[in-house]
Amino acid sequence: MAEPLRIALAGLGTVGVGVIRLVEANAQLIARRAGRPIQITVVSARDRNKARGVDLSAYAWEDDMVILGERADVDVVVEMVGGSDGPALALARTTIEAGKALVTANKAMIAHHGLELAGKAEDQKVALKFEAAVAGGIPVIKALREGAAANEIERVYGILNGTCNFILSTMEDTGRDFADVLAEAQAKGFAEADPAFDVEGTDAAHKLSILAAIAFGAKIDFSSVDTAGITRLRAADIAQASALGYVIRLIGMAETEGGNGKTALFQRVQPHLVPVDHPLAHVDGATNAVVAEGNFSGRLLFQGAGAGDGPTASAVVADLIDIARGEVGPAFSMPVGELEALGPAATGHRQSRAYVRFMVADRPGVLAEITAALRDAGVSIESLIQKGRSGDAVMVAMVTHEGPESAISKALELLEGSESLTEPPLVLQILGE
Amino acid sequence: MAEPLRIALAGLGTVGVGVIRLVEANAQLIARRAGRPIQITVVSARDRNKARGVDLSAYAWEDDMVILGERADVDVVVEMVGGSDGPALALARTTIEAGKALVTANKAMIAHHGLELAGKAEDQKVALKFEAAVAGGIPVIKALREGAAANEIERVYGILNGTCNFILSTMEDTGRDFADVLAEAQAKGFAEADPAFDVEGTDAAHKLSILAAIAFGAKIDFSSVDTAGITRLRAADIAQASALGYVIRLIGMAETEGGNGKTALFQRVQPHLVPVDHPLAHVDGATNAVVAEGNFSGRLLFQGAGAGDGPTASAVVADLIDIARGEVGPAFSMPVGELEALGPAATGHRQSRAYVRFMVADRPGVLAEITAALRDAGVSIESLIQKGRSGDAVMVAMVTHEGPESAISKALELLEGSESLTEPPLVLQILGE
Repeated sequence: MAEPLRIALAGLGTVGVGVIRLVEANAQLIARRAGRPIQITVVSARDRNKARGVDLSAYAWEDDMVILGERADVDVVVEMVGGSDGPALALARTTIEAGKALVTANKAMIAHHGLELAGKAEDQKVALKFEAAVAGGIPVIKALREGAAANEIERVYGILNGTCNFILSTMEDTGRDFADVLAEAQAKGFAEADPAFDVEGTDAAHKLSILAAIAFGAKIDFSSVDTAGITRLRAADIAQASALGYVIRLIGMAETEGGNGKTALFQRVQPHLVPVDHPLAHVDGATNAVVAEGNFSGRLLFQGAGAGDGPTASAVVADLIDIARGEVGPAFSMPVGELEALGPAATGHRQSRAYVRFMVADRPGVLAEITAALRDAGVSIESLIQKGRSGDAVMVAMVTHEGPESAISKALELLEGSESLTEPPLVLQILGE
Repeated sequence: MAEPLRIALAGLGTVGVGVIRLVEANAQLIARRAGRPIQITVVSARDRNKARGVDLSAYAWEDDMVILGERADVDVVVEMVGGSDGPALALARTTIEAGKALVTANKAMIAHHGLELAGKAEDQKVALKFEAAVAGGIPVIKALREGAAANEIERVYGILNGTCNFILSTMEDTGRDFADVLAEAQAKGFAEADPAFDVEGTDAAHKLSILAAIAFGAKIDFSSVDTAGITRLRAADIAQASALGYVIRLIGMAETEGGNGKTALFQRVQPHLVPVDHPLAHVDGATNAVVAEGNFSGRLLFQGAGAGDGPTASAVVADLIDIARGEVGPAFSMPVGELEALGPAATGHRQSRAYVRFMVADRPGVLAEITAALRDAGVSIESLIQKGRSGDAVMVAMVTHEGPESAISKALELLEGSESLTEPPLVLQILGE
């Protein structure tokens, strides 16, 4: 059997330890599949003495993780440190500059610095891989980069954040409100102590920008992702959606659009109403799912655990097996120099149906004021429900007929500053076919 | 840009023509992703003059397809001829022996001769790829071979035949009987004139044996797949299942089982009752779906179009892009010499719940006879429904408590030859977690 592939592992949190467990537990199988053993030679983390429930005595220890890639006994560095910049980025740069391959689960770093790192990796002719950065254990980067590579991808979308999906499906099952379910998720370890990255949509936006780059051969553009989280959703929104035949899911969606020979990139993370007969409506708990629509393949769906040490380690080691097999093509499916710089697409002309919810003062004339604004903006209402009460406010929820997003924006502008509204209106798109 | 990858295409049926269409329509994109153009140089089929709706004038024509691989202007032969033996196999052999790569969608040939061809390909250091052979456009071979490669796969199962799934979901939606729906499917082109390969489960068994080999690192053993089709299902079975909270799907399932240091391979294709809250219960029409359960990844689900010229071409060209990129590892994820020869697993001890349906004469004492046989065999009944009439016969359907399959077999033995039964009983497993 060939020489082992020698791994340096930086970061020994839950996921880093998961990688150790996997490499040890499945060592024989991995060697058969990879054609050579995959061996961790050295590890590094901030605190050498922390109890981690795993025996590290077989591995060398390096205090300064940034120099891991410069060691002679290392072929690949696995970066499990996290954070878009700081030590993770320093480690990634020194590793690649030292001519070693880098495997990472770090979506924030790839979303912000993926092009720079991929360019450096091309120069050095080493692999940069990040399967674990998107959708946990689901091999969706590979699916887009390779499995669906023959297709022009028309749209890629999915459920990219397990914490949000856990919260939404729990709200759905229990009728409880967001804050309440979030607190439970934090207590159970399904949500971080600082949940903003997840519940504000940032984490899903990181992942979406990576998927979009690969799917469309575009330069990553995280900063243009139109991002909204799930914090404003109420139990009543979910009940309302359910009565209309929908569930609510945080969907990240990207597509390109043409016009005048200029292609633009649409990227949005937002809670959507998902029809109950859509496959994504059945994605519950911390599960992730990604749909890619190819011009020849049709709709492909990939589903599985979106986070957790086991699934993440599965994706990391899949990357290592690829590297052991010598499969080390461009990180974003094509060389960085060939990725197109696509501007962000305008959204006003996008046609869709939408759910619009107002919290209004409970007094005469409010409904007339709202419906007049919608009429004046050209928004056509399919169904309207005035129901519920939250403190002094009454909820008015509606589903619009298909129309341009700009019409709804205009209606909301007309209502801006109205004393009838007790909080800004909430607009959710309805996921179409 | 590097030299083009030059393709010979053998077989110009719907799917072969689909490959031409895709390679032409997405040529630029494919070249960007593959790092070099993919160019069809020569084509071959039985009849040169047949109208195919596609312009072949840019391609050379070869009358004798078997020598395509020997041509100097060919790097890869794409075999779209079909059939486990005959010209397809002759072409595959001569191609690989000539030191050229082979891409095929031919599940029958791979199920029967895959090991021989993979061994030859290893000797010649050329690629043998067959993504399109299983589950159409879904990149599930790649998912198992690479994406989930870090895992010990505990079970792989799914909906592997689009024709059967179309028939079953149409029976479900319309309440119509098998023969009636099959006739419609044939008229619409969703089922072959000779549907036996599909509806008897053979096609799904071909695919399952290929998935099992890759998932478990085992030598392909198509002949040991325990195979039943959907021809005996009645509308009443589907209605009964529905009343109990299930749909019926033709499931191919494989897993390994240990014991005394000897691993055995379980492979079965059979209609199953699938709980409505299982993801496979929502797979309708000609869609395919494959679930792989890894020891670290957890449950992964891959879903998409299981057949059709577009999806099949998508998978074929994905293989070509892999080859163009130089990614040409072992066809079954590890070298043929390392695949284990696993004997077929015994099934009697398998624990499950089952649906058992009898068609019986409408006269006193029949139910007592059946329930006595079940009792004597140790089968415990969870629920029993006697209902419906088909000609002179009455249907008795039941769901058993979890128990060994051998107990049900024994009960059926006790009833063998009974004049109360108007046809042999039907036993369907219930898909468990």
